[in-house]
Amino acid sequence: MVASLRLPSLAYLFTSPSAALGRRSKAVFRRAHHPRPPPAAGFSAQSTAAVPPATEERGGKQKSRGEDRAVTPRSQDFNAWYLDVIEHAELADYGPVRGTMVIRPYGYAIWEAIQDYLNVKFKETGHSNMYFPQLIPYSFIEKEASHVEGFSPELALVTIGGGKELEEKLVVRPTSETIVNHMFTQWIHSHRDLPLMINQWANVTRWEMRTKPFIRTLEFLWQEGHTAHATPEEAEKEALQMIDVYTKFAYEQAAIPVIAGRKSNIERFAGADRTYTIEAMMGDRKALQAGTSHNLGQNFSRAFGTQFTDENGNRQHVWQTSWAISTRFVGGIIMTHGDDAGLMLPPRLAPVQVIVIPIYKKADEKSGVISAASSVKDALQSAGVKVKLDDSEQRTPGWKFNFWEMKGVPLRIEIGPRDVASGSVVVSRRDIPGKEGKVFGISMEPAVLEAYVKDKLDEIQSSLLQRAKLFRDRNILDVSSYDELKEAISQGKWARGPWSASDQDELRVKEETGATIRCFPFDQPEDIKTCLMTGNPASEVAIFAKSY
Amino acid sequence: MVASLRLPSLAYLFTSPSAALGRRSKAVFRRAHHPRPPPAAGFSAQSTAAVPPATEERGGKQKSRGEDRAVTPRSQDFNAWYLDVIEHAELADYGPVRGTMVIRPYGYAIWEAIQDYLNVKFKETGHSNMYFPQLIPYSFIEKEASHVEGFSPELALVTIGGGKELEEKLVVRPTSETIVNHMFTQWIHSHRDLPLMINQWANVTRWEMRTKPFIRTLEFLWQEGHTAHATPEEAEKEALQMIDVYTKFAYEQAAIPVIAGRKSNIERFAGADRTYTIEAMMGDRKALQAGTSHNLGQNFSRAFGTQFTDENGNRQHVWQTSWAISTRFVGGIIMTHGDDAGLMLPPRLAPVQVIVIPIYKKADEKSGVISAASSVKDALQSAGVKVKLDDSEQRTPGWKFNFWEMKGVPLRIEIGPRDVASGSVVVSRRDIPGKEGKVFGISMEPAVLEAYVKDKLDEIQSSLLQRAKLFRDRNILDVSSYDELKEAISQGKWARGPWSASDQDELRVKEETGATIRCFPFDQPEDIKTCLMTGNPASEVAIFAKSY
Repeated sequence: MVASLRLPSLAYLFTSPSAALGRRSKAVFRRAHHPRPPPAAGFSAQSTAAVPPATEERGGKQKSRGEDRAVTPRSQDFNAWYLDVIEHAELADYGPVRGTMVIRPYGYAIWEAIQDYLNVKFKETGHSNMYFPQLIPYSFIEKEASHVEGFSPELALVTIGGGKELEEKLVVRPTSETIVNHMFTQWIHSHRDLPLMINQWANVTRWEMRTKPFIRTLEFLWQEGHTAHATPEEAEKEALQMIDVYTKFAYEQAAIPVIAGRKSNIERFAGADRTYTIEAMMGDRKALQAGTSHNLGQNFSRAFGTQFTDENGNRQHVWQTSWAISTRFVGGIIMTHGDDAGLMLPPRLAPVQVIVIPIYKKADEKSGVISAASSVKDALQSAGVKVKLDDSEQRTPGWKFNFWEMKGVPLRIEIGPRDVASGSVVVSRRDIPGKEGKVFGISMEPAVLEAYVKDKLDEIQSSLLQRAKLFRDRNILDVSSYDELKEAISQGKWARGPWSASDQDELRVKEETGATIRCFPFDQPEDIKTCLMTGNPASEVAIFAKSY
Repeated sequence: MVASLRLPSLAYLFTSPSAALGRRSKAVFRRAHHPRPPPAAGFSAQSTAAVPPATEERGGKQKSRGEDRAVTPRSQDFNAWYLDVIEHAELADYGPVRGTMVIRPYGYAIWEAIQDYLNVKFKETGHSNMYFPQLIPYSFIEKEASHVEGFSPELALVTIGGGKELEEKLVVRPTSETIVNHMFTQWIHSHRDLPLMINQWANVTRWEMRTKPFIRTLEFLWQEGHTAHATPEEAEKEALQMIDVYTKFAYEQAAIPVIAGRKSNIERFAGADRTYTIEAMMGDRKALQAGTSHNLGQNFSRAFGTQFTDENGNRQHVWQTSWAISTRFVGGIIMTHGDDAGLMLPPRLAPVQVIVIPIYKKADEKSGVISAASSVKDALQSAGVKVKLDDSEQRTPGWKFNFWEMKGVPLRIEIGPRDVASGSVVVSRRDIPGKEGKVFGISMEPAVLEAYVKDKLDEIQSSLLQRAKLFRDRNILDVSSYDELKEAISQGKWARGPWSASDQDELRVKEETGATIRCFPFDQPEDIKTCLMTGNPASEVAIFAKSY
């Protein structure tokens, strides 16, 4: 399915380093907080919809037209590199309204791969998909005290419908706990109705001031699971089960060695008793909260009167969870694995796992090369590999190499006249640049090639995870005092240390260092600890880091 | 995947004819234009969001609590029957905001089956999925003259974001042509960028006054395809290709014998040059527009300046199409196939194709029966059949029979002690009530049973289509004068007759009969025709009908 992506028609934006593409040189993702460029010829749809222009899209030295549009080196400016990769790999583009994003086919295909995996896991763990309306009466949001406090600054409100001012403002859902509970209250009566375990794939809207493609946008796509249980133990088990599903997904599919743990009181979800999280280290060593699972306790069931009659005939409020992963995860994949050549995709989530590039110079070489390349493509396709043949004649092989490297395709197969003669191909790994990643003389014989390719894809999958793990572990420092913590953070690293201090102290760390508690990891050292801040006994270590 | 639906936990609403369920008796889908019932105990979340209460949900004689909640007979009150089926088969429920709908797991699973089929077809025909933001600057809607006229009365507007009044109101997308063109203008430059063929699965919002679950709701789910081409011929070919994809889907998957054709000028999409449609005849003989494909010509490309440079270096506006199918289609399935016993699902879209029901009275019969039923279920499941075993002990077999008939499951397998002894099962068809649809003594031997079940599912699929075709054809009358047309419509039928009269005449027919031109069908008689209204020559017949 994914192989039918119409990449060529959308491939136009890719510019490095072809001068012919100078006319497409506006730095799409860096223009946000600059005055908008003058409308292009025939472009009459410039939006005037705008709100305060504060964004996180720094590094935005807008390049003039015709300037070379190579990707900014990652080491030079991580943010500029990130935005360049999103543009050049054609993952997303800005929408007309500030802070909104158009997810382009290649970026959306990564999201579809994420959905395909998680959707099966959610069903295997007993959840059904359904759909709740996105318009929520404003009064609902006000029912749960910490929820309204957490979300009211971020709300988009519909006040006019069908040409008339509405009696009650409607909230465009920022999350669905309130409307879910409104419905649960109608569906749940007896303990026999429990557990009630559902999920929805949906868009949500939060009026964010500092936006960044995939990472934080006004509207984003996600799944939100919602469950109701008869006991607190069951709810806790469910919340833990789902963070575990996310953790496995991150490790096994996305090759991102997240650290799973519990949020601090200050960082937890507005309305939860406990929030579990997976925290990923990006290439600039900032943390990304990549998925969360909340034990909501009875907070929403009390606010909405969601009760059931237990086996003894007593009325009780249900115990609930909610959990979510969003398109933000795509940003996490980019910032974990990408390098100066562009995106680097883990094979299990790559829309294209293998790109086949025919190489010939003379006309009489063409048919043999193209025919061999097609056979190779067909053989791999029937073996279930997501493979694409780039046989366009407008581009040189060198241009194609760069282009598909930018797109992060894990494996490249090159086929030239000599390969055809010897019945073999050249296979290059995206994750190992240059000659070291290149193997000559792999047999074209379908069974041999398939086995080789599948083996290599597995190897790349493991290798990406291994590399990210090494990077992560090299950048987490164990600290035992506040000074050590400050030193670690100032070096751009994560600090892990024993913590039993107050919320006040946590806020002080944030103010003084910019770092927050990302989580109390599930994986804890065994020895007795002393709080790095107070010297009091501490039963756990916490991880501090700057974050997105 | 679908087999893991947690139906039991949601099955509670089903009430026929158990008195125990009286406490759940509020007629959920018929309450809309009545004063809301007093809040149930513990139900504190009553919404106050409301707008004019006009709805199409008539027939709403609200039943008092504890009254028998059997489904209204279809012949007695089609609309009441429809709403009852939606409630009892647990397809959907009302959302808190007027006109919104919660799609429950069983209803959503039907939508997922629709998505699974169409998503593959869209990709096979060269389209890529992507995602556009739902918030659109108000000024965009105003750019295409007929578009703004068609949609402005139905818009939901966001005027407040992040606590501040916005400078420009934002439209919650009612459809995406405007924002799609805004982006296409940035992506399309040369003929090499064409065709550009994309699709998105999304929610859309239209402030409808007369709502009805699935058929017309304030928010609904759909897919919208959008394409841009270099020539009008290509755009026309694409528009026709997609209505053909929809037509095949309707016939082959949904067993709905739609009539495909072209809309009249008056009925076409706001902004299209030509609209193609599939029109389905519901059980009450009203027409349902079940899917549309629009040739947009250059209307949006001119409004948004979407141009390309052709092979001769000239700038031209692109030629476009858009096409959509929505959750309305689920309503079409209900109203095409359902009967007094409830829903009747075509096997290819049924979330559960086979329900296995164990029957035993004595304790010593139980283990043998349950074990045989489980084996049957496992065997069918491994054969790829969507099968479910209902082994709950709280319900009698008779209750289960009714329940799964209400849910429209195509085949039921009954297994009792005598069946276990003889190594056989009883198989009942949902589409043939009573003894006639029941076959005894089908061998439990996996290979035999699988073959039998698959064969029967195919037979039911064909049979539903055949039955709907007969019904449709019996209810379309060929007319050659306006009097005949009026007579046909007054009998509740569709009228098919030669038409070359004016838009004015078409509006007069609507005013005088309530019927509109549903389409000029692709399938046309060969003989020469005379316009039924004017007596002038007519090159085509049109179909007139009352519609949803």
